[in-house]
Amino acid sequence: MGVVTDRFKVKTKGFSDVVDITPRVAKAISGSGLAAGIALVFVSGSTAGITTIEFESGAVSDLQRALEQLAPQDRDYAHNARWGDGNGFSHVRAALTGAGFSVPFAEGRLLLGAWQQIVLMDHDNRSREREVVVQIVGE
Amino acid sequence: MGVVTDRFKVKTKGFSDVVDITPRVAKAISGSGLAAGIALVFVSGSTAGITTIEFESGAVSDLQRALEQLAPQDRDYAHNARWGDGNGFSHVRAALTGAGFSVPFAEGRLLLGAWQQIVLMDHDNRSREREVVVQIVGE
Amino acid sequence: MGVVTDRFKVKTKGFSDVVDITPRVAKAISGSGLAAGIALVFVSGSTAGITTIEFESGAVSDLQRALEQLAPQDRDYAHNARWGDGNGFSHVRAALTGAGFSVPFAEGRLLLGAWQQIVLMDHDNRSREREVVVQIVGE
Repeated sequence: MGVVTDRFKVKTKGFSDVVDITPRVAKAISGSGLAAGIALVFVSGSTAGITTIEFESGAVSDLQRALEQLAPQDRDYAHNARWGDGNGFSHVRAALTGAGFSVPFAEGRLLLGAWQQIVLMDHDNRSREREVVVQIVGE
Repeated sequence: MGVVTDRFKVKTKGFSDVVDITPRVAKAISGSGLAAGIALVFVSGSTAGITTIEFESGAVSDLQRALEQLAPQDRDYAHNARWGDGNGFSHVRAALTGAGFSVPFAEGRLLLGAWQQIVLMDHDNRSREREVVVQIVGE
Repeated sequence: MGVVTDRFKVKTKGFSDVVDITPRVAKAISGSGLAAGIALVFVSGSTAGITTIEFESGAVSDLQRALEQLAPQDRDYAHNARWGDGNGFSHVRAALTGAGFSVPFAEGRLLLGAWQQIVLMDHDNRSREREVVVQIVGE
């Protein structure tokens, strides 16, 4: 049993940009030397999140539309009124969708469906470089 | 310390059918020989998810209504326009609610509330047989 | 490697009251004697949840408004019609946002962003005293 912490950077466009990070998470698993366990994929910061989706442009844009309905960009936000940074919608989207996501792996590979990818969603209102942590606990 | 991977099948009706899988997850824990740790309950595929709810027909139908508002079935979806499979709503619901859920256990039993059940939600637009993975990490 | 289960109580006002529990989770980590791993923060019960947010009053009230839209308090709920306890909205909010949240830690500290706090959201329709479980798996 052991714990391995991997980190990598991802450039995003913000505004709920959805980036497929599956290959990078798979690389973290294979580099860990662990065969089976849980990989917690986590993004530090309060305006981004991790989930899974079939990564094709249609499903991605449908998800982005739903996020826009949950927390529209052009609405008034108390966060914006206090801090003036204009990303109130980003905070709400991130709190609702979650900053981390756990995926099981066995025999050295992620137990995902064939059309299921792990994605970073960057809800902030500008381009960002994000650090993603993959915390791997297993044997 | 060790990792135990259990798997079981669940038949669903689709359309955000909600199925109580608590007894099956509890059986996975007791069969693992582990006393304490984390059980990650995960469904492979991009049109289903796992959460907890008080499993009674009222709360379940209230949840289904909220999911219908988040991503209505009869709306136009870019995913449907591209792939013609009609389950654009399923992908959005699954990405927002999450494909996996982690539950703590100690002394061999799940640390759930008395009226809190672990459920599989199948958002697809047809009946499915789903495979649920229970990834147990503990001692 | 080991598993440490910590528990603490939190008083809330209900109605999606948001309480910063980061210091208490950090204390659980330092008390565990473990340096690196996964901390699963979990609330038993079907009307509360855990997430992360920038804990300032603006972002918190924006989140509460979004939850009110997802599942308004004053709407008819099938749960209320069956059980008469008036907290149908609480169950829907809890099922959508999730009863638990996993955070990675390394070198004895949580890998959160500078403005990212772990919060308990109590969606119930009254004041509660909640028990939060921190299930720590690591080395």
